[in-house]
Amino acid sequence: MSGADGLPTLRVRRLGIDTLQQAVAFIHRDSPVCRAEGLSAHTSILVSAAGCDVVATLYPVSGDFLATDEIGLSDWAWQALSLCEPAQVRVGHAPPAESLSHVRAKIFGHRLAAHACDAILSDIANGRYSNIQLSEFVTACAANPLDRNEIRNLTQSMVQVGERIRWDHEPIMDKHSVGGLAGNRTTPIVVGIVAACGLTIPKTSSRSITSPAGTADTMETLAPVDLTLAQLHKVIDRENGCVAWGGAMRLSPTDDILIRIERVLDLDGEGQMVASILSKKIAAGATHLVLDLPVGPTAKIRSVEAARRLSAALSDVAQSFGLHTRILQSDGTQPVGRGIGPALEAFDVLAVLQGNADAPPDLKERAETIAGALLELGGVAREGHGAALAAATLASGSAWAKFQRICDAQGGMRTPPVARQTRDITAPRTGVIDRIDNRRLSRLAKLAGAPEDKAAGLKILARIGEQVVEGQPLLTVHAETSGEIDYALDYARNNPDIIGISA
Amino acid sequence: MSGADGLPTLRVRRLGIDTLQQAVAFIHRDSPVCRAEGLSAHTSILVSAAGCDVVATLYPVSGDFLATDEIGLSDWAWQALSLCEPAQVRVGHAPPAESLSHVRAKIFGHRLAAHACDAILSDIANGRYSNIQLSEFVTACAANPLDRNEIRNLTQSMVQVGERIRWDHEPIMDKHSVGGLAGNRTTPIVVGIVAACGLTIPKTSSRSITSPAGTADTMETLAPVDLTLAQLHKVIDRENGCVAWGGAMRLSPTDDILIRIERVLDLDGEGQMVASILSKKIAAGATHLVLDLPVGPTAKIRSVEAARRLSAALSDVAQSFGLHTRILQSDGTQPVGRGIGPALEAFDVLAVLQGNADAPPDLKERAETIAGALLELGGVAREGHGAALAAATLASGSAWAKFQRICDAQGGMRTPPVARQTRDITAPRTGVIDRIDNRRLSRLAKLAGAPEDKAAGLKILARIGEQVVEGQPLLTVHAETSGEIDYALDYARNNPDIIGISA
Repeated sequence: MSGADGLPTLRVRRLGIDTLQQAVAFIHRDSPVCRAEGLSAHTSILVSAAGCDVVATLYPVSGDFLATDEIGLSDWAWQALSLCEPAQVRVGHAPPAESLSHVRAKIFGHRLAAHACDAILSDIANGRYSNIQLSEFVTACAANPLDRNEIRNLTQSMVQVGERIRWDHEPIMDKHSVGGLAGNRTTPIVVGIVAACGLTIPKTSSRSITSPAGTADTMETLAPVDLTLAQLHKVIDRENGCVAWGGAMRLSPTDDILIRIERVLDLDGEGQMVASILSKKIAAGATHLVLDLPVGPTAKIRSVEAARRLSAALSDVAQSFGLHTRILQSDGTQPVGRGIGPALEAFDVLAVLQGNADAPPDLKERAETIAGALLELGGVAREGHGAALAAATLASGSAWAKFQRICDAQGGMRTPPVARQTRDITAPRTGVIDRIDNRRLSRLAKLAGAPEDKAAGLKILARIGEQVVEGQPLLTVHAETSGEIDYALDYARNNPDIIGISA
Repeated sequence: MSGADGLPTLRVRRLGIDTLQQAVAFIHRDSPVCRAEGLSAHTSILVSAAGCDVVATLYPVSGDFLATDEIGLSDWAWQALSLCEPAQVRVGHAPPAESLSHVRAKIFGHRLAAHACDAILSDIANGRYSNIQLSEFVTACAANPLDRNEIRNLTQSMVQVGERIRWDHEPIMDKHSVGGLAGNRTTPIVVGIVAACGLTIPKTSSRSITSPAGTADTMETLAPVDLTLAQLHKVIDRENGCVAWGGAMRLSPTDDILIRIERVLDLDGEGQMVASILSKKIAAGATHLVLDLPVGPTAKIRSVEAARRLSAALSDVAQSFGLHTRILQSDGTQPVGRGIGPALEAFDVLAVLQGNADAPPDLKERAETIAGALLELGGVAREGHGAALAAATLASGSAWAKFQRICDAQGGMRTPPVARQTRDITAPRTGVIDRIDNRRLSRLAKLAGAPEDKAAGLKILARIGEQVVEGQPLLTVHAETSGEIDYALDYARNNPDIIGISA
C-alpha cells in the first residue's frame, strides 16, 4: 500500500477514456488512499510512475467498475506516464502550480513578463493546469489583450517548452493558411512546386481537430505522413521537400492544448493566434514564411479590418524572431476546390498537379499565388515573377514529378480510396447562388464520416454566382454506410440554406 | 436504436462517478451514436429522458467497461435526469448555450445587463455550461470587475433561478459569517438566543465543501438537519428558529456551482462574493441580516481595507433588495473555540449553551455579539443593549432550553460521537505563540478524517499570546483509525510552523 517515498500506491488500469489533452484519474471512494489523503472530487492529484509524473483531476467512484486498490486513468494520463500494464503508481496531493499567480496577476491587469510566460507554459506543457485553469488563462488573455511584447514572450515560451528542429542551411521555407475554409488544400501542390524549384520546404502539418480534414489527413491518402524526426531529415536530404504530420514531433506542444480551450470558448484572441502560428513555424526551423489569410463571413477571419490587424501583429512578431515573412490576403467567401474530406481533397490536389483539364481553377490559382510568393521570398524568382514561375513549374510537370518523388521518399505513393455510396443534394429552387456557409458545410462532411473515413465527405458542384435550376445537384455526399448518408441528408434537409440561392 | 423524435437511444448505466456539479457522459467510441452524430471527446451532448434533459461533456471510451449500446453517466447527470435503472435515454448534439455571447461581451469590457445575467444564470442552473465555460465566466468577472449595478443584476438572477421561501410575517432574521476561520461555529448558539427572545430565525446552512466542517455538519451531530421545505415551515411554526441544511432546498443553486470554480481558481471577486452571500439570504426569505466578517492573514478576508470595501458593497446591494443589514468586523487571526471538526465543534457549542465553566470564552463572546446585533436589528433590544440581552438569555438557560426544543422539533436531540483514538501534538520549543495558520490547521483536521468522520478533527489547547514550554501539548488529534492519526501526525511533522512559536 505504500511506496519507498511513503506515498500510497495503487494498481493502475487503462480505462481507454478519451478526454483529449486532459489527465483524469478515477479512484474508488472507499480506497484507503482517498480517505487517508483527504482526496475528493476535483482534487488535483500527482500520479507518479518510474521517472514520470502527471497531475490529474480526480473523480471518486462509488460504482463497481473499479476495485478499491485500483486507479483508472484517461488515455492522456496513461500516455504521459509511458505506462504498460500491470503497473503500480504512487498517488498524492499535487503541489499547486506556482505559475497560477502570474495568471491571476494577468487577470488583474499586469503584463506577462518573459519569466511569467515561461513558468505558465512550462506548467501547461507538464499537464499541471486543469481545464478550469486553462480556461482562466485563455480568458485572461482575451479580457486584457496581449500587447506585442507579451505576444513575443508567449511565442518564445511556446517554442521553448517543445522540440526545435535545426537545419544546417538557409533559407528554410514554410507556409501557413489560417483555417476555417473547407477544401483549401494548397499545401501538397505548393510543396511540389517550391521543392521542384530547388528550395527547401520541410512542411509539418496537423490532422483535423474539428474540421472534416487536416492537411496531414489528406496527405495520408497519398503517402505515409507519420514520420519521425530522423525520417523527416532523410526525406529533406533526398528531396528538399515533404508534407509530414507534425503531431508526434512535439513542436510547440502547448499550442494544441490552448487551441482546444479556445475552440470551446469560441475565443481566438489575436495575440494567441499569432503565438500559435509563429511558435510552430519557429520550432520547425523555418526562416522564410508565407501566410495566407482567407477573409470571409464564415471563415476564421471575418473582415478586412481584422485581417489587417492580424497581419500587422504577425509581421511585427515574426520580425523580432528574424523570420522573413510575407502575408497574403485571399477570398474566404466559399470553399476552395471541389472536394471536402481527405480523399476527395486529395483528388483535387492530384488533378492540379497532373495538369488535368478539369482541375479546380481556384485551387490551382491559389497554389500558384502562394508558391509564387515563396519563390520570390526564397530568392529564386524576381519580385512580381513568382506566380508565373510557379505556373510554369506546374505546367511543365516538374512539380508533379517532384511530388511523386517526395511521396516515394515518405514511404511510397498511394491511391486515395473511393467511398462505397454517394447521393446528390439538389437545389430546392431556381436562382443564383449567393452565399455558401463554410461552417455548416464542414459539419455536413463530418456527418458523412470525414475525416475518420478517409473516402467520406462532399463534392461541391456549384459556386457563388452560378445560375442553378430546381432539382439540379449542388453537392454529392460520399460515405461508407447508408446510415451516414441518411444522417448527412437529414442535416441537409434541416439546413436548406447551407448554400443560399436568391431568386 | 432510435426514439420517437428520431434521436438515437442508449441504455443508461449509473457509473457512480462523483464529478461534483458536472454532467459527464461516457459512450463507447464504436457506438453507432458516436459515429453517426459525429460526437467526439469534449463534445457537449444533450441527454434526454422522460421530461428531463441535461447537457453533458462527452468522454468517448475504447475500453471494455461499457457496451456499444450503453451510456455511462456521472452522479450529477444521473440526478439531473431523475433516473432509475433500467432506462433508455436519447442523445444528440447540445445546442450551444446562447448566453455565452454575453460572457464574451463581458470579456470584451461590456457591462452585464439584467437580461444577460438572467440568461447566463439560467443556463448555468440548467447545466448548460461546462467547467471550461464556467471558468470563463468567473474569470471574465474578475478581469473586468462587476460594478454595483452588475452585482445587483447577478444577485437577482441567482435568486430567480432557484426556489424562494415566502414567510407570512416580518422580521425574518438571518446571519452569515464569511468563511475561512476554523471552529467559528456561532450559529447554533445565536439561533438559540435569538429564537428564545421571540424573533423568527429560519437558518439554513451548508455542509463543508473543503473545510473540516460546515455548520450543517456540526448541527447534524446534535439533531437531524435534512429537512424538506414543509418540515422547515413546521419547525419554525412551532419554535420560530431552526438550523437546517439548505442544500436540498435549491436556494440559489448556481452559488455552489460558481463557488466550486472560484475555489479552483483561488479567485473570489468581491462582486461574486456579495452576490453569493446575499442571493442565499434573499432566497431564504430573510428581511434582517447580520454579517460577520473575520479579518486575518489566513482568513478569507485578509485586510481591514478589503473588509471595508466588501462591507460597502454588501450594504449597498442589500439595501437595494430591501434587506436590513448590519455588518460586524471581527478578529480572524486564529480559530474560534477549541474544537475543529463536526462533533468537537458541537461540544464547544453545548458548553456555551449550557453555561459550563470551561466553555470557550471567545466563542461565547462572538455568539453574544452577533446575537446582540440581531436582537437590536430585530427591534427586541435597544441600540447598544443587544449583547447584554444575549448574554442574559444565555446565562438564564433560556437559550439552551430553546435550542433543545428546536432540536426536538427537527427530529430529536442527539449526543455527538467521540473518536476512538486521540494523540497529542506538542510544542517543538519553548516560547510564546505568535500566529496560527487557519488554512493548514483545517488541512490537518481533514487528514484526521473530518468531516466524513463526524468525531474526527482537532482540539486546540493553546492560543496566540500564550507562553508554552517544549513538549507541552498544543493540539489533540481525534480520529477513528490509527492510519488517519498517522497521516495527520506526518503532516504536522512536515509543517512544524502551523502554530508559530517565537523565542
